[in-house]
Amino acid sequence: MAPPATQDNDGPKLISVGHDEAQQAGEAILAKHGVGRSAAALQTSHLVEGDLRGRPSHGMQRLPTLIERIESGVLDPEAELQTSWTSDAFLAIDGHDGFGTVAIEAAIELLSDRAGRTGVAMAGVRRASHIGMLAPYLERICERGMVGIVMTTSEALVHPTGGRTALLGTNPIGVGVPADPEPFVLDMSTGSISAGEVIASAQRGESLPPGRCIDAAGNPTTVPERAQDGAISPFGGGKGYGLSLAIELLVALLSRTALGVEVRGTLDGHHPVTKGDAVIVIDPAVVGAPSPASYLSAYLEELRVAPTAPGYDSVLIPGDRMRSERERRLRAGIPLPAALWQELLRLRDEKMAGAE
Amino acid sequence: MAPPATQDNDGPKLISVGHDEAQQAGEAILAKHGVGRSAAALQTSHLVEGDLRGRPSHGMQRLPTLIERIESGVLDPEAELQTSWTSDAFLAIDGHDGFGTVAIEAAIELLSDRAGRTGVAMAGVRRASHIGMLAPYLERICERGMVGIVMTTSEALVHPTGGRTALLGTNPIGVGVPADPEPFVLDMSTGSISAGEVIASAQRGESLPPGRCIDAAGNPTTVPERAQDGAISPFGGGKGYGLSLAIELLVALLSRTALGVEVRGTLDGHHPVTKGDAVIVIDPAVVGAPSPASYLSAYLEELRVAPTAPGYDSVLIPGDRMRSERERRLRAGIPLPAALWQELLRLRDEKMAGAE
Repeated sequence: MAPPATQDNDGPKLISVGHDEAQQAGEAILAKHGVGRSAAALQTSHLVEGDLRGRPSHGMQRLPTLIERIESGVLDPEAELQTSWTSDAFLAIDGHDGFGTVAIEAAIELLSDRAGRTGVAMAGVRRASHIGMLAPYLERICERGMVGIVMTTSEALVHPTGGRTALLGTNPIGVGVPADPEPFVLDMSTGSISAGEVIASAQRGESLPPGRCIDAAGNPTTVPERAQDGAISPFGGGKGYGLSLAIELLVALLSRTALGVEVRGTLDGHHPVTKGDAVIVIDPAVVGAPSPASYLSAYLEELRVAPTAPGYDSVLIPGDRMRSERERRLRAGIPLPAALWQELLRLRDEKMAGAE
Repeated sequence: MAPPATQDNDGPKLISVGHDEAQQAGEAILAKHGVGRSAAALQTSHLVEGDLRGRPSHGMQRLPTLIERIESGVLDPEAELQTSWTSDAFLAIDGHDGFGTVAIEAAIELLSDRAGRTGVAMAGVRRASHIGMLAPYLERICERGMVGIVMTTSEALVHPTGGRTALLGTNPIGVGVPADPEPFVLDMSTGSISAGEVIASAQRGESLPPGRCIDAAGNPTTVPERAQDGAISPFGGGKGYGLSLAIELLVALLSRTALGVEVRGTLDGHHPVTKGDAVIVIDPAVVGAPSPASYLSAYLEELRVAPTAPGYDSVLIPGDRMRSERERRLRAGIPLPAALWQELLRLRDEKMAGAE
């Protein structure tokens, strides 16, 4: 059994920051480091989206690392994407060590246009930095009336079933399907907990939920410090492991990127990025599917009002909770650790070395 | 806690049948019911593969149901597939109430050729009967040097997280990626247990593993009879539910087939089939990926010899166990319930109504 949390108040002090204020700060910081206006706006908006949707691990806390990556020369603020259609429906993107968010947004634009003619189109993306949450991309694909699948690899933090060392990324997968009034958007990691949550639990002196991590010897642990010496377990046992491995292989092969412990550059400040991304876009219109797909919406509504199991108020559709949290935070502001906000303001206001 | 199994010997008596003998019997039975030679051989081989790979729920036990479907007029033994490229890379297949195995094999043939030019190609398949295990299709795709993804919907047997009624199929997904000496092949249901295993546990008087099913009131149960009045739980909690729902929506939309409780015709003898299938084929050659992908094979080998957790002899790659079981059964024969084999021999030898 996990001991009760005893040091809740020892977590980082949070302050509320308006999403527009965070956006302006982020853009200013990136601009000072040589990032062009549109890339700075786009990259920052994806970080702000992470905080708006309650995923701080994909939020503004990543900005100092991006700056560190620019300063150490592994992230090129002026990189120009290289996009090439290697065949009629396959797009190879080389990010040239630029922003992952810029690469994926470009992929969506090009793939959506192409899928309108070919029915399905796919991109493999290499040498582009961390792409953040998948949900915003899937929403963008669905706004164009398209179905989307996005997969990405990440540093090895997850052990294979039966193993005791981290050999797989948390390898998230996202699926977006157009529906009314909101699209269906799944955005999930194939790890059973995020590295950020393990770190946060350690900082707060809290136990981890059982079954999420193993220690260095391969035994299950709820002690975050032991988990940090061990590995994160895949979600859902052997099946989750299988899915994670499938994503690792498929993405690496089709984006010509690294595997397992060779995957680097999304968490640290100095390793060239070796992870990959894959995006598939499908146009339901070309298959003769009704659009908007009213029967999908009716089915999702049937799920929302379905009889509940003991202990549940309602059946949720993936994305529902995140959407309402986002609405709330758009009004109330995003909670950021006070120290992070101070750090961001310092980055915004500091004199740049070598600047006139 | 589950009580120990007490009636192991009350399960059906098993006999060993040579896979070739089973193949011949299946072909003869289908031929008697108006199925052409090549379709009969293909459909039977997929059933035999189910038994060879230790998945009897996808094996010869389904043949009597297929015959029942032919006799009741919902499965057309002489159906001709309608295939049409609705766009350059999207193939719509209407099975015209014929065999699902025939439809998927045709899809693989056409998609593989097309992906060689377009990079990626996809098929949506409707009005085709149960397609059986996904692994054999993925192996076929990998033999051609291609990456494959196969998804299919099925009768609503799985409850959404928080719900207590079955509103989702067991919606399997398969992913195949070429590697040496064997391809990587994932073939998994998104339910935490198969309906066949629940039925078999009831017949043997055994308990179910915990966490796999709920009763009619929505409470977890290990009693198979109560589970039969309830629903199967998705694997991996909310994430598995999300994945299952994504497959349900994506397949239904792109094959123009039914959703939730409207999905019929894979388990019974008399409902027209309303489930759908989706197949994606990608050619790694067009993205400039090395072929054969030796670094994928090296990574899979790294996993196989990775340090193990307590209680494990080795790290397994999805498909490894099934492959060795298949080898064993190719030599030793497939275990079939004696009553099933008698039933198959009767179907093979009976005089057909209306036959001279």
